[in-house]
Amino acid sequence: MRSVFLSLALTSLLPVIAIAAPKNIIYMIGDGMGPSYVAAYRYYQHQPDQTKVANTVFDDLLTGMASTYPDDDTLVTDSAAGATALATGVKSYNGAISVNRQHIPIGTMMQLAKRLGKTNGIVASSQVNHATPASFLAHSNSRRNMNDIADMYLDYRIDGKPVADLIIGGGSKYFARQDRNLIEGFSALGYQYTDNFLQLDSITRLPALALLSEDALPAALNSEVVNMLATLTDKALQLLSGADNGFVLMIEGSQIDWCGHDNDIACAMAEMHDFAQAIQVARAYVDANPDTLLIITADHETGGLSLGANGVYQWRTEVIRKVKATGRAIAQQLRKLENQQDISKRFTELTGLSLNKAQLHLLLTALKNEDEKIGLGQIVQFISEASLTGWTSGGHTAADVPVMAYGKNASEFNGFMDNTAIAKKLIQYIQQTQPH
Amino acid sequence: MRSVFLSLALTSLLPVIAIAAPKNIIYMIGDGMGPSYVAAYRYYQHQPDQTKVANTVFDDLLTGMASTYPDDDTLVTDSAAGATALATGVKSYNGAISVNRQHIPIGTMMQLAKRLGKTNGIVASSQVNHATPASFLAHSNSRRNMNDIADMYLDYRIDGKPVADLIIGGGSKYFARQDRNLIEGFSALGYQYTDNFLQLDSITRLPALALLSEDALPAALNSEVVNMLATLTDKALQLLSGADNGFVLMIEGSQIDWCGHDNDIACAMAEMHDFAQAIQVARAYVDANPDTLLIITADHETGGLSLGANGVYQWRTEVIRKVKATGRAIAQQLRKLENQQDISKRFTELTGLSLNKAQLHLLLTALKNEDEKIGLGQIVQFISEASLTGWTSGGHTAADVPVMAYGKNASEFNGFMDNTAIAKKLIQYIQQTQPH
Repeated sequence: MRSVFLSLALTSLLPVIAIAAPKNIIYMIGDGMGPSYVAAYRYYQHQPDQTKVANTVFDDLLTGMASTYPDDDTLVTDSAAGATALATGVKSYNGAISVNRQHIPIGTMMQLAKRLGKTNGIVASSQVNHATPASFLAHSNSRRNMNDIADMYLDYRIDGKPVADLIIGGGSKYFARQDRNLIEGFSALGYQYTDNFLQLDSITRLPALALLSEDALPAALNSEVVNMLATLTDKALQLLSGADNGFVLMIEGSQIDWCGHDNDIACAMAEMHDFAQAIQVARAYVDANPDTLLIITADHETGGLSLGANGVYQWRTEVIRKVKATGRAIAQQLRKLENQQDISKRFTELTGLSLNKAQLHLLLTALKNEDEKIGLGQIVQFISEASLTGWTSGGHTAADVPVMAYGKNASEFNGFMDNTAIAKKLIQYIQQTQPH
Repeated sequence: MRSVFLSLALTSLLPVIAIAAPKNIIYMIGDGMGPSYVAAYRYYQHQPDQTKVANTVFDDLLTGMASTYPDDDTLVTDSAAGATALATGVKSYNGAISVNRQHIPIGTMMQLAKRLGKTNGIVASSQVNHATPASFLAHSNSRRNMNDIADMYLDYRIDGKPVADLIIGGGSKYFARQDRNLIEGFSALGYQYTDNFLQLDSITRLPALALLSEDALPAALNSEVVNMLATLTDKALQLLSGADNGFVLMIEGSQIDWCGHDNDIACAMAEMHDFAQAIQVARAYVDANPDTLLIITADHETGGLSLGANGVYQWRTEVIRKVKATGRAIAQQLRKLENQQDISKRFTELTGLSLNKAQLHLLLTALKNEDEKIGLGQIVQFISEASLTGWTSGGHTAADVPVMAYGKNASEFNGFMDNTAIAKKLIQYIQQTQPH
């Protein structure tokens, strides 16, 4: 049934137009990376002793902006509908994993690529079966069906093989389950496997699966590993670069969005840095392999982030640079302390901010709340107030998102476009794959 | 002294590089028009019965994004520093009207254009001596010196003539003053003059001055005149189109910013529509006169606007489309009413929103406050809450702003750039003016 649909999709939805197509596509998605995140990261990177604000890799590669609205009248997309649009060129409802409103699967660019003999890879700093990567590999009526989605990574076959030749990220608990062990299934198909970042070298060829954490990978700001996404990107490119018919590699900077949901600016800037380092690796690959297109965008904006707030004409990056952990990690640490003075001292160590008596009282009250989000909320509020960072939501907004492109056909992504137009162009390129 | 500086600037700051230059430049600045305003206007224009969201003229012409930070460590610019960067290619401090930190005048592109024999025009929906237009024509240590700035429009001469050949907008009270009547001064130099929008036809040639209101022009949402800025743009282009050596025309959609300061989304959308209609006129001019470059950008973002707020994944444009007047105008009308029921009824007539008892109490209390901003604030808060519009500030933010370009050399404005880079390119083009 599914492959019938896919065949139909190939003939009906995807007209073949002759454009010189890149052999390889590196598609990087910063989840939640609205335009303010890109500006924020530039200023966060800027040192006050530099005379000029330097461009970031995002600035260097910017070509346009994209709209992100889903297939209903809300205008504000979630990550599932956003990723569905970016993976298939078709809009759907919030929560949809590459199915339409009638719950009919929509063929994805990676399924098409596999059918045409290309090699596919997925790298994510979330669980690999989270909404964004899921929309490239699987179909589900709801992003919440995370076990079903993991199952489909193994069970959905094209010419007898899973859609992805390489899967790297978190989420082993969805694959090594009591009811079913998907890792054994992948191994039986010849997939190399590791669950340990330090043993990534044990992956020496495709196909391969690396599930480096039970759930998501650690937040960049809390992690002892520096440039984790860049390391994973480099590994993926090494493994994919020999692909005879070229490859499609999707890399998600997944947790920018999660920091946005928490309204945690220090967390967001660390994730942006992690994502930026991964982009540098991808850019270097394009320089060495000019038959490659690097395309970077976001699925939506998260949090209604603004630089400057409350009528003050300033954004204080020096406050943000001093923060040593995410709001969640700080709250967790502080909750373990009993003594008020210890809490105050540790808060200052972790944030660089000193609390007055009234503020300490607010913090202590918030930390005692049964709802752990209250403590987190108070901590990030102190950081937002001190840095003059504005937020309007714990959810997403309908802001347009930046589009960056580099390498072969990059200029095709100049100007304003809808998010579906990005996918449609990539699908056109994939359709022109020449059998090796 | 000033002309000495300008001569220095020509040789030292503005190296002549041979690029085919457009003869005419139309430079349109949406004051406060951050990226969310552009997305918001697209969805505000979209009718729910349409199947697809149509591109606006902003979308059609988008080429890139620009950073806006001023020449200090605040990162958040005001309109004076923003316009100084856009008019001179040099950053300065907040409040500066084309002077640097040492208060030395910085030559502007319109001064250069005049020296090289081009014809200059200014159109603004604010007072014509407000920060943005002022930075193109004059120099002052502070944007607040509005009489001095108006004086300079007449007194600053290049080859014996004022910098602007055409000035259209509001602000007659700064020109017809008790201490000095600048209008007589302009008339003595041969400028045609009108103070009446309905008598715009009496302006038949350059040079000319049209000050159509004592202060700013009416807000688009309150005005009985439809497409006022488009009408003024059309008039300006008719007058300038005969210029032998080409022209530089700056058109400001001034009040987008003022709506942003008020956190008034209906006001902002009406100003965006007014600005969009003016852009359509300019685009048609470029189509008929291909030796023209149309460039559109903003000086900064105002208000930290987001589409969607408070965790809800929706932005309700139907709420905004029902609002019939600006928050300021609504507050003014409601303050004249005594009876609670009359206030409630009139509020509903003007906004489409019904107030419950608690909300009516909030409104009545706010309207009674001596500070008129409190009543305004309550009214726009009801509209923001109902439409799920988010704001983080009554001031500006450090968001990057959109850049649109059309016509000759438009592709030079692809990608990310600093706001000064826009001005530097335009100055390069102006420098290549060939004497007629």
